[in-house]
Amino acid sequence: MVSFESDYIAGAHPEIIKKLGETNFECLSGYGTDKYCNSARDKIRKACGLEEAEVEFLVGGTQTNAVIISTMLADYEGVVAAKTGHVSIHEAGAIEFTGHEVLELPQENGKIKPDILGQYLADFFADGNHEHMTFPGMVYLSYPTEYGTLYTKAELKTISEICHTYHIPLFIDGARLGYGLMSSRAELTLQDIANLCDVFYIGGTKVGALCGEAVVFTKGNKPKHFMTSVKKRGALLAKGRLLGVQFDTLFTDDLYFHISRHAIEMAERMKELFLSNGLRLYLDSPTNQQFVILDNERMEAMRERIAFSFWEKYDDSHTVVRFATSWSTNEDDLAALEEALLAQ
Amino acid sequence: MVSFESDYIAGAHPEIIKKLGETNFECLSGYGTDKYCNSARDKIRKACGLEEAEVEFLVGGTQTNAVIISTMLADYEGVVAAKTGHVSIHEAGAIEFTGHEVLELPQENGKIKPDILGQYLADFFADGNHEHMTFPGMVYLSYPTEYGTLYTKAELKTISEICHTYHIPLFIDGARLGYGLMSSRAELTLQDIANLCDVFYIGGTKVGALCGEAVVFTKGNKPKHFMTSVKKRGALLAKGRLLGVQFDTLFTDDLYFHISRHAIEMAERMKELFLSNGLRLYLDSPTNQQFVILDNERMEAMRERIAFSFWEKYDDSHTVVRFATSWSTNEDDLAALEEALLAQ
Amino acid sequence: MVSFESDYIAGAHPEIIKKLGETNFECLSGYGTDKYCNSARDKIRKACGLEEAEVEFLVGGTQTNAVIISTMLADYEGVVAAKTGHVSIHEAGAIEFTGHEVLELPQENGKIKPDILGQYLADFFADGNHEHMTFPGMVYLSYPTEYGTLYTKAELKTISEICHTYHIPLFIDGARLGYGLMSSRAELTLQDIANLCDVFYIGGTKVGALCGEAVVFTKGNKPKHFMTSVKKRGALLAKGRLLGVQFDTLFTDDLYFHISRHAIEMAERMKELFLSNGLRLYLDSPTNQQFVILDNERMEAMRERIAFSFWEKYDDSHTVVRFATSWSTNEDDLAALEEALLAQ
Amino acid sequence: MVSFESDYIAGAHPEIIKKLGETNFECLSGYGTDKYCNSARDKIRKACGLEEAEVEFLVGGTQTNAVIISTMLADYEGVVAAKTGHVSIHEAGAIEFTGHEVLELPQENGKIKPDILGQYLADFFADGNHEHMTFPGMVYLSYPTEYGTLYTKAELKTISEICHTYHIPLFIDGARLGYGLMSSRAELTLQDIANLCDVFYIGGTKVGALCGEAVVFTKGNKPKHFMTSVKKRGALLAKGRLLGVQFDTLFTDDLYFHISRHAIEMAERMKELFLSNGLRLYLDSPTNQQFVILDNERMEAMRERIAFSFWEKYDDSHTVVRFATSWSTNEDDLAALEEALLAQ
Repeated sequence: MVSFESDYIAGAHPEIIKKLGETNFECLSGYGTDKYCNSARDKIRKACGLEEAEVEFLVGGTQTNAVIISTMLADYEGVVAAKTGHVSIHEAGAIEFTGHEVLELPQENGKIKPDILGQYLADFFADGNHEHMTFPGMVYLSYPTEYGTLYTKAELKTISEICHTYHIPLFIDGARLGYGLMSSRAELTLQDIANLCDVFYIGGTKVGALCGEAVVFTKGNKPKHFMTSVKKRGALLAKGRLLGVQFDTLFTDDLYFHISRHAIEMAERMKELFLSNGLRLYLDSPTNQQFVILDNERMEAMRERIAFSFWEKYDDSHTVVRFATSWSTNEDDLAALEEALLAQ
Repeated sequence: MVSFESDYIAGAHPEIIKKLGETNFECLSGYGTDKYCNSARDKIRKACGLEEAEVEFLVGGTQTNAVIISTMLADYEGVVAAKTGHVSIHEAGAIEFTGHEVLELPQENGKIKPDILGQYLADFFADGNHEHMTFPGMVYLSYPTEYGTLYTKAELKTISEICHTYHIPLFIDGARLGYGLMSSRAELTLQDIANLCDVFYIGGTKVGALCGEAVVFTKGNKPKHFMTSVKKRGALLAKGRLLGVQFDTLFTDDLYFHISRHAIEMAERMKELFLSNGLRLYLDSPTNQQFVILDNERMEAMRERIAFSFWEKYDDSHTVVRFATSWSTNEDDLAALEEALLAQ
Repeated sequence: MVSFESDYIAGAHPEIIKKLGETNFECLSGYGTDKYCNSARDKIRKACGLEEAEVEFLVGGTQTNAVIISTMLADYEGVVAAKTGHVSIHEAGAIEFTGHEVLELPQENGKIKPDILGQYLADFFADGNHEHMTFPGMVYLSYPTEYGTLYTKAELKTISEICHTYHIPLFIDGARLGYGLMSSRAELTLQDIANLCDVFYIGGTKVGALCGEAVVFTKGNKPKHFMTSVKKRGALLAKGRLLGVQFDTLFTDDLYFHISRHAIEMAERMKELFLSNGLRLYLDSPTNQQFVILDNERMEAMRERIAFSFWEKYDDSHTVVRFATSWSTNEDDLAALEEALLAQ
Repeated sequence: MVSFESDYIAGAHPEIIKKLGETNFECLSGYGTDKYCNSARDKIRKACGLEEAEVEFLVGGTQTNAVIISTMLADYEGVVAAKTGHVSIHEAGAIEFTGHEVLELPQENGKIKPDILGQYLADFFADGNHEHMTFPGMVYLSYPTEYGTLYTKAELKTISEICHTYHIPLFIDGARLGYGLMSSRAELTLQDIANLCDVFYIGGTKVGALCGEAVVFTKGNKPKHFMTSVKKRGALLAKGRLLGVQFDTLFTDDLYFHISRHAIEMAERMKELFLSNGLRLYLDSPTNQQFVILDNERMEAMRERIAFSFWEKYDDSHTVVRFATSWSTNEDDLAALEEALLAQ
């Protein structure tokens, strides 16, 4: 069955598989010290326009969030996130497992509103009586968000300024970063992202890799003895080459951006199919995830022809479902989707 | 340069790379629910002779140790391990990070002595005044050990019986399990291991995979909602297929055992080279890791021709170094080693 | 200056001080095993009408919340609480420090609404796709709440039933329990509380003791080796007698209830003073904490005569402040308050 | 029955009880901000000869160890301690609960040997390959040790210098500090202790208080927002006065030292009784704890007349037992002990 269930249902982009084969017999040192990791670091630094950035590779998104947040927060601090943030609800308490609180803010279409953030921090630090409360020590946001939406350049600049006013690092979860950068409505480049935040990661798992996230510390702020902290969290890969080769490939000849652009084009055509077939969008996502409100009967009928994801209950008779595209989505998939939509 | 630095310096066994390519375009569900994971589970259960065993896949060894130990211990319990155990010293405090203590026992050649374990547990549970001490709640041992040595069948049976007397699960770290099973001096089969312990894992990373460890719960004792606990530790791989395909390949046509046997044969020849060239072994390892005592000058000279690992200081003028073989070690490597030894 | 700043600004009820002196020279065993602890346990069991209840003593409220929640939750579970719950915001992340998430629900006047709780649990357990989310594993509520309000008997019964439907324990934070039980509007007795929940505590610190909270496990559900888990959290008092003597005194001749009733009477008269002097209540609290909305100028003026607590910003020109009574509040305090109010 | 079971079997020194009564009706702010806490801080600073020292109060010893160690270590660090250190074995894993490893060193009579410590740190930091190991980030020692023994001035100076060579703070657990300072064989004054270490605490619980330990940060090194970190660990006492009044009393007119000297005198006479009655000492302790080797029959017989503590098994027919003195030990107690010894 054709599937739009997520952006991690297929394997890796074929170029990655090819490269894993070509480099397979080489003897390389472990734990991220090999030449492919180093080459990937160089290419990422260049793509970010930050020669001094520090780049480290981790295996998955939740792991990366937990490692970054817990190594950068002070003991008495928590991380501020949207109530719908991945760290708030979809990581089974991975941040709390490291001993830190997620301080949830209201959201709109998955985004933190700059004024709400500003007011929250102003109130917290104005009030002299907060020793019994977790200090906000980092702001976390996802780009694109968990609902596929994008911060505008103005929004991200304001959030960045607010963070710096209070000396709080801004961390951007880029598990789907490529789809944000290549969206037709993107206002922010990779360099913008790198300049506006203190740490972010470039998602591999959901953008064509088998696994892997590339963390970028933008301001010489990589936590001291980071490798040991990574090891302590069970997150250090022995054959670090697996990550190095993948990111080296993704950042050769702009593959990361081509993959992302392809998925965006597929998503745009998918969206047109939904609209031309009278489906109602839950919100207007400009990226590779599309959220549709289906009445429950239609949902069950479609499920027999096409795979997609349950997202959340809309009301007693309707459900929000998600369709995602990726490097592997192709014409045949769209044709099958169209057929399924017409059959309803 | 030819390298014997570790058993994770090369990529994966070519059969695995091939299979990753062949299955790459298939649409598969995530998080270890795909058909390759299920097929690998079946094959592993069969190889263990335990139809009801529960099999789960994790990415690396330290991660697996931390996940298993922390999900199986009660709050007031710690894990008993040899002072030289991997969890005791080489995991940067990964077990402690989960809130649990490693209770260290003296060792001999990397092994826990059954009588010392028995006496320790007898004393602990006899003494009525231990509420201020961490309770021993699991016994951890490595097979082969961190020094490449093997428990005899009699030893492992005795340890297993001691554990069951005190209702404490026995956990076997099998990061290099294949090399123990295929050693010329092995007394224990995979079925023996599976029968004698409560939980163990079959190491992939060090036995031909790119990454991955297959955890086997032998007694219907998989912790409840294990997937959520794995997620909470940042250890859940989105594209679980990466682990499923690899273990499915490793357990097809006995590949896991062939890889292991090959490395053992190479190690046996390497050991003969050491002995015939007058090198002194630190201990008599029957597996793929060989530990040699070199005087420091010779060590530096050899280092220019061959890569190996510093293990520990022996005395002021000698060092213990480690040479390891793997699926990728070949005739040319041994020839280069011989040449280097003769050149001294 | 006369102070209504909190219910822990004075020392202990004089009867407690007297008893500490009288028993001071006795040789007693440590860690809560002494005869006063045992006597207090008996009296509390009797007062609760639960002969089989298990009673343990801890030092403070946040400590008690963290110990109870973290020893009773499974690894994959979090605790459900009102967004305004003490564990949600005023414990500096003490629950998260133990590795567990606080799952926040909307509230009304500090209370969890039974229908919202019911719907949340129904949705969570109906949905088959929650492995990536923290499981709700306990419901936490405060009686009285952080805003001094009380659950009705019907509300608490409904919440208790919902918890039992989903096999989730109900934990009642009784840091100010006496004030809830002795309120003129109380519908629930100590026996009712004990019967409706799985675990609760009888607050000492805020109800006449120097320190101490008495935890009551109502259903034979005290976590195994609880003393060791308490020790592990640095919460085991060597001279446990300090807690035993205090609770033994508090539960002799109904002292706990007399102290609570006295504070309620003082609070009722204080409330009348506020209303007759035209102050606006933030909400209608029937217990020993009263929340008043003051314009900021008046607040500053009053502050020079009377001590009270900043609670939260109301709007740009008004503030919510708290006045609390306790065992030590007396006629002179009320007279000084009246004078201060008239002076405005 | 007369008891030498521990130094925390009686209540507080009568002067403390008196003072708690006298100050009981005063209105005081909470959480350690009251005037008695501040007065006690001043007196302790003066006694230490360190005007700039920061002093904070906590409730008990294990709690203090866990709070200090976990707030002062970096993520990748553990604490170095003797194998017999309180943090190593008698705290039920309280340090590990905070996510940090205890790195155990061999000991002699309860003491870390400076040369062993020096060699361990030299090896660790010389070796370039320790990223997979917990970094030593603090040295912990007890003064007196868990066996009642004392470091000489030369030993402590050497340890202090070693720590500073490696930029590792030295933390002294002074749960029984007074007994070390007032021992006839003491070479170190309170000022020496304060000067040689980075942080230490003055034990109250075992030296005449109901509870309480006074932590002294000697070098302006109190962790930032320490109160919040204390709260986060459930260790912040609401009625901080309980600790302030006690320490203010202990440091008025040298009460702390008088109490300690009294216990030492009683211990010296007790020791003479043991020796003149032919008992064998396990080691030569110059402080308030005496360790005696008894044959098991004699131990059982004595137990019927005098209370003491089981310490550890000596051999199959002998046991090491502990007798402790405190502020409350008196002539009658010694007479009863003598009678019991003669009766054997």
